[in-house]
Amino acid sequence: MKEYKVKVEVKLKPVVLDPQGKTVLTALHNLGFEGVDDARIGKLIELKITDDDAGKVRARVEDMCMKLLANPVIEDFVVNVEE
Amino acid sequence: MKEYKVKVEVKLKPVVLDPQGKTVLTALHNLGFEGVDDARIGKLIELKITDDDAGKVRARVEDMCMKLLANPVIEDFVVNVEE
Repeated sequence: MKEYKVKVEVKLKPVVLDPQGKTVLTALHNLGFEGVDDARIGKLIELKITDDDAGKVRARVEDMCMKLLANPVIEDFVVNVEE
Repeated sequence: MKEYKVKVEVKLKPVVLDPQGKTVLTALHNLGFEGVDDARIGKLIELKITDDDAGKVRARVEDMCMKLLANPVIEDFVVNVEE
């Protein structure tokens, strides 16, 4: 059994409006940061998981994303498993 | 002038308690996911920035993090610039 570090990136699908990102974009412009064309905000979830195989860890984390960590209707997720 | 894609990872510093992560950890256990030892939640900010040099983009985004995107007292950030 090893401990794996897993990073999950959860982002809104490109077709979904992101009001939080829009607010950040406006705030950056108001602070004088020019040339910023787009801002989108997602979640970064870091997990520590004890298991015996990286493939199993990935499959389980994808299951966690479908059930809890992401809303698959409006969000995409990317799972990165590090040993 | 090129358009750069920038990914900013904003995470709570390791010494800072993460109640949201604790809640997710408990929820994962309640859903039957065993072997999950820790969960921490951060932000993933994706920016599109038009500039003429990747180094300048990085410096400006670090400035944005200090001023708006992160709270440097309790959060760490990592800036990744992609062309």
